Amino acid sequence: MKFPKIPMAAINRLSIYIRALEELEEQGTKVISSERLAKQCGVNPAQIRKDLAYFGEFGVRGVGYRIEDLIREIKEILGLDRTWNIAMIGVGNLGSALIRHGNFIKHGYVFAAAFDIDPHKIGKRLPNGLVIHHIDDLEKVVKECDIHIGVIATPASAAQSVANQLIIAGVNGILNFAPAQIQVPECCHVENVDFTIKLDSIAYHLSTTGT
Amino acid sequence: MKFPKIPMAAINRLSIYIRALEELEEQGTKVISSERLAKQCGVNPAQIRKDLAYFGEFGVRGVGYRIEDLIREIKEILGLDRTWNIAMIGVGNLGSALIRHGNFIKHGYVFAAAFDIDPHKIGKRLPNGLVIHHIDDLEKVVKECDIHIGVIATPASAAQSVANQLIIAGVNGILNFAPAQIQVPECCHVENVDFTIKLDSIAYHLSTTGT
Repeated sequence: MKFPKIPMAAINRLSIYIRALEELEEQGTKVISSERLAKQCGVNPAQIRKDLAYFGEFGVRGVGYRIEDLIREIKEILGLDRTWNIAMIGVGNLGSALIRHGNFIKHGYVFAAAFDIDPHKIGKRLPNGLVIHHIDDLEKVVKECDIHIGVIATPASAAQSVANQLIIAGVNGILNFAPAQIQVPECCHVENVDFTIKLDSIAYHLSTTGT
Repeated sequence: MKFPKIPMAAINRLSIYIRALEELEEQGTKVISSERLAKQCGVNPAQIRKDLAYFGEFGVRGVGYRIEDLIREIKEILGLDRTWNIAMIGVGNLGSALIRHGNFIKHGYVFAAAFDIDPHKIGKRLPNGLVIHHIDDLEKVVKECDIHIGVIATPASAAQSVANQLIIAGVNGILNFAPAQIQVPECCHVENVDFTIKLDSIAYHLSTTGT
């Protein structure tokens, strides 16, 4: 589906709305006002209405949103009306922990392959059944397993060369946990995860409030 | 140090600037223009000048910023001119991997305590030398170890009660890896880490560009 250019901040908020809506649905709620959804998500109601207005008309004035419908519609907007096969590159402590983490599959992301360069790990089977491949087999395995997103959890020094290999293999989405800036061509979309940036926000808050 | 109300987005960008500046310093660079720093960080130069202007005057017109000075000044702004003792609550796969991850100590965050509720884990020593405490000893250990930030890596169902215990123990900064929204009083600052929100951005990009 094609939409006009949407700010990435709005796209990120859609992800947050969907998580709140799914929690409400699990609790048995069927309909919600933008006011209540806003409170749940920590934004203001006008923001929610504005974010959704990029994509069309949702909800009924004076009533609110039917949760089931809104979840389905936001999933369609984000491209989450399907599952995505993803690959882990770097099966160290963090990589293994992420593969086991239930949050990925819950949101439709399936670890379908894992790669490393350590000869002691190649060929070993992970608890979820995946066999660890050598990174040199990336291109072949990406095709076989229909991988669209690569998750990099290697040391910083290996991140750029792994990114290059992913792009050559036709993988245009990268989630980077390595503490390194990686350069990619325009066709590729990279998201960096650096926990310590969030800790810096906390440190700033604690310093300025003196708590 | 007290500054006027600064948007959190600006604070987050300061963290990104500092990481780029440290990388440049390691490479031996002494002075950098806002244009080159902007390129390195993926923002525009006016943004950098605006973000820094919240806190005073930096750099020399026509010359640029002295990297060593700018790092020191940003660290002072963010409250990073010191180390912060942090505690891990939940020593499962993800918690253990995070404790071992070199990125925390690199940025001045020191895991000074670890907690769990699993009787098989209590009293065990982690590879970095920390002994795992029972969560019931949180208040005592927080005081002994001068902990200011708690990192939650428990299952979602335990996250709120752990947050409550942290706040009672006087810990007002929380980095939450559990996939659950936690409610805290105003004095407390929470940052949530949900990798799957970043994957949603990637999925959106791949869906809309058809790659």
